[in-house]
Order: sequence, then C-alpha cells, then structure tokens
Amino acid sequence: MAQTTTLKKEAAGVRVHKLSIILSKGTLDMAYPAFMLASAAAAMGTEVHVFFTFWGLSVINKKKESKLKVAPVGNPALSVPNILGVIPGMTAMTTSMMRGKIKGMKLRAIPELIHDAHEMGVHIHACSTTMDMMGVRQEDLIPEVDDIVGAATFLQLSEDGQTIFV
Amino acid sequence: MAQTTTLKKEAAGVRVHKLSIILSKGTLDMAYPAFMLASAAAAMGTEVHVFFTFWGLSVINKKKESKLKVAPVGNPALSVPNILGVIPGMTAMTTSMMRGKIKGMKLRAIPELIHDAHEMGVHIHACSTTMDMMGVRQEDLIPEVDDIVGAATFLQLSEDGQTIFV
Amino acid sequence: MAQTTTLKKEAAGVRVHKLSIILSKGTLDMAYPAFMLASAAAAMGTEVHVFFTFWGLSVINKKKESKLKVAPVGNPALSVPNILGVIPGMTAMTTSMMRGKIKGMKLRAIPELIHDAHEMGVHIHACSTTMDMMGVRQEDLIPEVDDIVGAATFLQLSEDGQTIFV
Repeated sequence: MAQTTTLKKEAAGVRVHKLSIILSKGTLDMAYPAFMLASAAAAMGTEVHVFFTFWGLSVINKKKESKLKVAPVGNPALSVPNILGVIPGMTAMTTSMMRGKIKGMKLRAIPELIHDAHEMGVHIHACSTTMDMMGVRQEDLIPEVDDIVGAATFLQLSEDGQTIFV
Repeated sequence: MAQTTTLKKEAAGVRVHKLSIILSKGTLDMAYPAFMLASAAAAMGTEVHVFFTFWGLSVINKKKESKLKVAPVGNPALSVPNILGVIPGMTAMTTSMMRGKIKGMKLRAIPELIHDAHEMGVHIHACSTTMDMMGVRQEDLIPEVDDIVGAATFLQLSEDGQTIFV
Repeated sequence: MAQTTTLKKEAAGVRVHKLSIILSKGTLDMAYPAFMLASAAAAMGTEVHVFFTFWGLSVINKKKESKLKVAPVGNPALSVPNILGVIPGMTAMTTSMMRGKIKGMKLRAIPELIHDAHEMGVHIHACSTTMDMMGVRQEDLIPEVDDIVGAATFLQLSEDGQTIFV
C-alpha cells in the first residue's frame, strides 16, 4: 500500500511544477504577456525560468529595458493604417498610448515587473549565442540576470516542465 | 499484476490529453494556425483551452472577428516590398488575397472556425487583465466565450498538458 | 524491488525526450532560434520534430530558403525608424547586417543548419493544409523534408513531449 502511494505521488509529480519561457521579442506588447505569466506562475509556487534570446535581449538591456516600444506598423490588430504607422513619431505615440493605459491600470512597468518577478524567484537567463550576435556585453545586462547560458543548458533547465516561446 | 497495470496506466495517462493555446496576436495569419491546431486536437478527443490575450482579444471581439487582417509590412516572407506595404489599401489587398485563397480551398472563415471548435468542446477564455488594458468589455465578446479569467486561472487549467503561445 | 525500479523508470521516462517545434514564421530572425533549439536538443539525444506551416514554409522552399530576411519595419527592437524601414533597400540592409554578424560569428547559414540538423536526426515535416493555401508544391520543397502531414498527424507525433510555437 505504502509503495503504491509513493508511486502514485511520483506519477502525480509530473504535473506542471515548472514553466520555462523563451522571450525572443523586444517589444512592450510581448514582454508583458511573458512577465504576467511568469509572475502568476511564480506566485503559484511554480519554478519559472525566462530565457532571453534575439530581440528579447533588449528587455534585459540596461539602456533599453525602460524604452521598449509597441510597433504600430505590421500590426493590423492595432487599427493604425500602415501609412500613418511610418510617420515619424507614430511608434512613440502608440507606445505612449499603451504606457498610459498600463499606468492608468496601475500595472507595473517592465523593469519593475522583472525586478519583482526575480524577487519572487523567477530565474533570468541571457542567451550566450545571441548576445554575441547582437553585440550585447555582460555589463549591458540588468542586475537581475542570473546567468548567461547556451541553448543546451536552457533545454536541460526546462526539462520536465512546460516551455512556451514568445 | 493488477496493481502494476494500474500504475502503468497512470504513468501512461501523462500523455497529451490536454492542449492549451495562448493566442496573443490579432491577425488572420496567426488566428488560423491556432484554430487549425485547436480543432484537430479536439477532433482527436483532446481537452483544448484557448486563452485570448493582448491583440488576440480582437479575434473574439464581435466587431472585429470578421475583419482580421494579414499585415503586408514587417513580414518579409510575404514578398511585398515595404514601400508598397504602406500604401493605403495594401493591407486590404494582402488580406483579400489570403481570404480568396482560403475561400478557394473551402476552408472555414475564422468566426465559423471558432463556432465549430466551440461546438466540438474547445474552451474559449478571455484574459481579464488585458481586457481592461485594451478597453474591451464583456458585451463586446462573441457568445462562444466561456469565461473571463486571469493568468493564474489559465495556468491552473493548462496544468498537466501542453501549452503553446501564438 | 525490481518492479518498483521499473515503475520509477516509467515515471521518470516522462521527462522531455521529445521536442516539437511549429515554425510559422518565414523570417531569418525566427528561423534561427527554432533551429538553434532543434540542433541543441538533437545533440542531447532528444527526438526532435519541426513542423513548417504558414510563412514557415518559405524556410523549406528551395527558391526561398537562402533568401530569408529580417524585417526592419514593425520591429521596434531593431532601432530602425519606421520611416527608414519602408525605404526600398532597408530590408536588404538590415538582413545583410544580420547575415554579416552571423558570418562573422561563423554560425552556419539556415540551409546548412537545416541540412546538419536533419543529418542529426531532426524530423522535417511540411504542413499539407497551408501548402495548398500558399500554393507551395511538393517539388518546391528542399530534399530534407521527410513528409507532408496535416495538423492531426503532427499532434500525434508531438504527444508526450514539449511543443513550442515559433
């Protein structure tokens, strides 16, 4: 009986106790869902790993993290005609509209979200291969970054859990 | 022996019996793969959850769901030069080309796909946090929406299954 | 005792031994992360499936795979003002900048990455439904493509593993 119980627990233990998020985009509108999920999962006691790669490296770049934008072109869901989207200032305007809404809702800004998520135990990993490709150096990264790892290490870290690619 | 069989079944029960899709994009070309997967999985007897967040809310917005577009700019795979992509009407033209193909293939339109998927048991969830951010109200949503939930509830619903982020 | 060990192994066997990647984008900057993950996973002995759908079909199209681009518009992380992004030649310039970096790093080009990944055992699947929609024929595909399958077959292949959508 005792043995059965132990084995049952092991089988049950395969439930999602780990969430890994690969963040490959460097826009405000993709950093938000990634960190909203990361924070919600961490609050539920889930082990969370966020792996920043390609454009996602902007999100953990000291000089860029507070300047993330929302693209008004190439995003028909935003209802901005493309011809307007390319007028200088439109990216700024769309971004500022979104920031305004976020502020109005008292949602945290991205740098604060990352800081709080990290305090809650969310692991922050930077992708070594794309750092070289994008010319990002270790000293460019925010202090919340736990380590700089390659794809193989990330795959090992994310084993046994759910992985989503943003 | 009987005990072993039971335990084996439990271990085997961890197979993908559940698929959760987070739809964060509001374009025709991303709504399609999401619902093609959702419908195929439901037809196989899989429990399916679709969680609409950020731009994805447009897909379940009564006024917007039949007007989803394909972006001709920022999408080099489409072979439309960017300079043409910003000419007013090009989003409409690209979208209409894609709709034409879809119609020619007798594929269902998005509102029909969602309706049929829902009839097949696919659960439709709207993200409460981003509804506030985007100014979407409950009465704006199509009747197929089962509930309005936060990220934590979605994470619980998607436990033990596969989750993909579109 | 022996029985317990066997059952433990079965439970442990639910670890990520399989990675499935749905590649729906046709840009250089999304094909890279997909194949970097696929190659890293294959090198670790993981069973890997890549399913090319929608714009992702360009990546396995003989005429297009060596001409994949990076979009300078609609991608604020790239720091190219939108008004510059639509000037003819800017997609080419951004793409060539990225190719230059990739070459400088001695990273493999996409056709080589796919070829090597395939040699390592990565399974290459083309999506039948979207091939029809996009007007792609079997003879347009690179020889590394193992088969042309629908969403249902892909879902079966990806069962019991992790699936990510790029």
